[in-house]
Amino acid sequence: MLSKGTASTGTAATATCCDFILFGTLGDLARRKLLPALYQLEKANLLHAKTRIIGVARDSIDTETFTAKVQASLEEFVGKAQLDNAVWERLAKRLAYCGFDLASVSEYSLLAKTLKRDDNRAVLSYLATPPQLFPSICKGLSEHQLVTENARVVLEKPLGHDLPSSRDINQEVGNYFAESQIYRIDHYLGKETVLNLLALRFANPIFADQWTHNAIDHVQITAAEQVGVEGRWSYYDDAGQLRDMVQNHLLQVLALIAMEPPTRLDAESVREEKIKVLRSLRPITQQNVREDTVRGQYSGGFVGDKKVPGYLEEEGANASSKTETFVALKAHIDNWRWSQVPFYLRTGKRMAQKRTEIVITFKPQPHNIFHETMAQLPPNRLVIRLQPDEGVEIQMMNKVPGLGKQMQLKPTTLDLSFDETFENQRISDAYERLLLEAIEGNQYLFVARDEVEFAWKWIDGIREAWQQTNEEPKPYPSGSLGPAAAITLIAHDGREWDDDF
Amino acid sequence: MLSKGTASTGTAATATCCDFILFGTLGDLARRKLLPALYQLEKANLLHAKTRIIGVARDSIDTETFTAKVQASLEEFVGKAQLDNAVWERLAKRLAYCGFDLASVSEYSLLAKTLKRDDNRAVLSYLATPPQLFPSICKGLSEHQLVTENARVVLEKPLGHDLPSSRDINQEVGNYFAESQIYRIDHYLGKETVLNLLALRFANPIFADQWTHNAIDHVQITAAEQVGVEGRWSYYDDAGQLRDMVQNHLLQVLALIAMEPPTRLDAESVREEKIKVLRSLRPITQQNVREDTVRGQYSGGFVGDKKVPGYLEEEGANASSKTETFVALKAHIDNWRWSQVPFYLRTGKRMAQKRTEIVITFKPQPHNIFHETMAQLPPNRLVIRLQPDEGVEIQMMNKVPGLGKQMQLKPTTLDLSFDETFENQRISDAYERLLLEAIEGNQYLFVARDEVEFAWKWIDGIREAWQQTNEEPKPYPSGSLGPAAAITLIAHDGREWDDDF
Repeated sequence: MLSKGTASTGTAATATCCDFILFGTLGDLARRKLLPALYQLEKANLLHAKTRIIGVARDSIDTETFTAKVQASLEEFVGKAQLDNAVWERLAKRLAYCGFDLASVSEYSLLAKTLKRDDNRAVLSYLATPPQLFPSICKGLSEHQLVTENARVVLEKPLGHDLPSSRDINQEVGNYFAESQIYRIDHYLGKETVLNLLALRFANPIFADQWTHNAIDHVQITAAEQVGVEGRWSYYDDAGQLRDMVQNHLLQVLALIAMEPPTRLDAESVREEKIKVLRSLRPITQQNVREDTVRGQYSGGFVGDKKVPGYLEEEGANASSKTETFVALKAHIDNWRWSQVPFYLRTGKRMAQKRTEIVITFKPQPHNIFHETMAQLPPNRLVIRLQPDEGVEIQMMNKVPGLGKQMQLKPTTLDLSFDETFENQRISDAYERLLLEAIEGNQYLFVARDEVEFAWKWIDGIREAWQQTNEEPKPYPSGSLGPAAAITLIAHDGREWDDDF
Repeated sequence: MLSKGTASTGTAATATCCDFILFGTLGDLARRKLLPALYQLEKANLLHAKTRIIGVARDSIDTETFTAKVQASLEEFVGKAQLDNAVWERLAKRLAYCGFDLASVSEYSLLAKTLKRDDNRAVLSYLATPPQLFPSICKGLSEHQLVTENARVVLEKPLGHDLPSSRDINQEVGNYFAESQIYRIDHYLGKETVLNLLALRFANPIFADQWTHNAIDHVQITAAEQVGVEGRWSYYDDAGQLRDMVQNHLLQVLALIAMEPPTRLDAESVREEKIKVLRSLRPITQQNVREDTVRGQYSGGFVGDKKVPGYLEEEGANASSKTETFVALKAHIDNWRWSQVPFYLRTGKRMAQKRTEIVITFKPQPHNIFHETMAQLPPNRLVIRLQPDEGVEIQMMNKVPGLGKQMQLKPTTLDLSFDETFENQRISDAYERLLLEAIEGNQYLFVARDEVEFAWKWIDGIREAWQQTNEEPKPYPSGSLGPAAAITLIAHDGREWDDDF
């Protein structure tokens, strides 16, 4: 059906026709990510000829003004020089705007009127708004016949701040949409390299057969940021790093790494396996929270050459905040495959380097026949890097070419991800992939309700244990690798973080 | 003890001092390979300051003439522009020549006189002569006190043409030298990439753990030449491709791939494991010779653009010769590790391309979750290429970057062998490595008597079966992939040769 080896297989001809309603169309996410993603889909001919894009926000502007604003956003975030005029003109023709108070259910009649739907095309509502608006948006859509059988709703995080609030949101949206219509975004799942992880694991027997406790020693997942709270102090302080990064992105990545091979590459099969992983996470309680977690909070310091303030000295800060800006933890998946294989997770703000990566460290060689030239053989490692650049590498041992009395070995890093065929190809942003899948109705890269809720359950347990043990965040200088305790956490097991920075 | 990551670890200071006696010093092998190898060792500072090199042949020339001849050989085979004058001058000072009739034992007194040995340094005699001379050379050395306790003898092939003649040679040399003093050369064992195979197998758990019938589907070893018999018709016709290539090079490579992990990287351990493999080769008899072997003989055709004659039309040919210039065969190693894993061997002259490579094909993925975009996933393959260029590649599946409705996969080839650190490094010729190991007294890259004899036993069995079944060589056009029957041999098992040429 689909041709082999081509980078883009969808076409305008096979694309699904829909009305794409973008709630919060003037907001930051829409401007930075969603509108540019739609532009790229247009450019790649992946939008159906009749697909419409309707921006919704509270501002009273007309479609013409809106179109100008979209153009300005694209010039800023795609790049003025990169914008192809013909593509932009095609995209511009799809645009319409509808301004009203999103909290007022009756005003959704305006949206229905703007749409003037005369066919049964899909309605895709993208909720790039605060979650407080989700109930009225859903109700407004429903009361104006916009929750049709092939309607879909895309939800942006945060989906709650703990299990009860997450349940509330899911319940409220669930009153109007079936679970099969709800697309919960975690943009990590749209990243090229995260998808390649699926290809690596399930299309290569040399990895698939070794993806167990028999061959793998441990897994590290790091998401280090250089930025601080960047003017969002209050918002961030309500959440903290555990809820902001671990509950969603890191646990999603962990689930993809750890899941059993799904029967098929569809939403049902993939989610089923991810849920099993999240359900198997060993609870962190007051018994093990001190040993298995580290909370940190950045103090002042230097990131690169730039002097930066501490978390408590940031603009708008409450100087007595105990919110963590760094977490390191050791997770165990209590199942057959991962017995005795710890997953070390680490994420923080104002760290030495922007770096998001997964490191799979294989077990060491049982016997070293090269001990005369190398007393200890470094283990094989598979490194899946999401930031600052995407790539997959394998670290293996090779002979050093050349003469010498003994066989000289050297660790060699191989780039597995992109061969020269793809060298000059633009890597799609995660949102392009996810918008496309949502338009096409493929749910496998979106997060199921049970996933969100099992993740919250585990995260809530950690927060509870911190409270019970009065675990205060340990200060760490901006521009460092986090608190020393994070190094101790892994060193305690005779291992170390993969930090070459 | 040895520093990490340096390409050359021996130094003149740690090198072993020896008298290197090169019998057949004016012959083709010495001129093309051995003298250039000694030059490279000199250049790399791997020869002891006092090591001497004594050329021996029957010609009555003096050392000065000899030195000029060596220089001429180096200019031809290292390259005039590449020759470093300072290196050459250091090498030239080591040279001496001694001319006499090698078949005359008493004349070895001349050699003893030339050497005027006044210390107990090692004597390394390299026998680059026809094997008929081996007994008198050994006897001559012995009778003139040149087989000291730390004497060594290096033997060049052919070591016999069947088991009895090989035993004779081994016995004759064995009368004068202990097995631990005998270095049987198979230059394939000195190739950089063959050595890297050891590093790959035994320093990388991701390969080591899968190096069995559980993960490997089959192994191919191909040694295809473009050349014909090149003026050596009679010599070649006495041997044929089975004895000329399979008995030594291909079976040595097979043994390294198939052996159990040796306890240590020393001669005893490595040879023990190789012998076990050769002893486990399932005999090919008249019952299975037609199914498991193909004999071929090239007819006229084109290699590239060049019209070339058939084997029977070559200069000096006996037009009724039944000697094979091509062999394909399926070998089984009857042990636990390789149960049901065929090793397909293939070698021939006047083939489409010069290409020597080992292909390890892993078993297919048991279940394909990508069937919508790729009905059948290509297997992972490890390709170890010796010619035309040396390299190690792994073929794996990757996601094609970019958008598309489904996950698009693509086989990607990764170069595992030399990372950019080594990019501009000259790859040492096999003889450099082997001369160095012989000088240093490391026997693990040389072939033990039992290896030679078990290999001959298996080869003799095939030749006997061909005779019993009157198996005549099948003609194949020069410049082709060999007889069609070679393709059938592997196709019969649902597999195919890895030929992208």
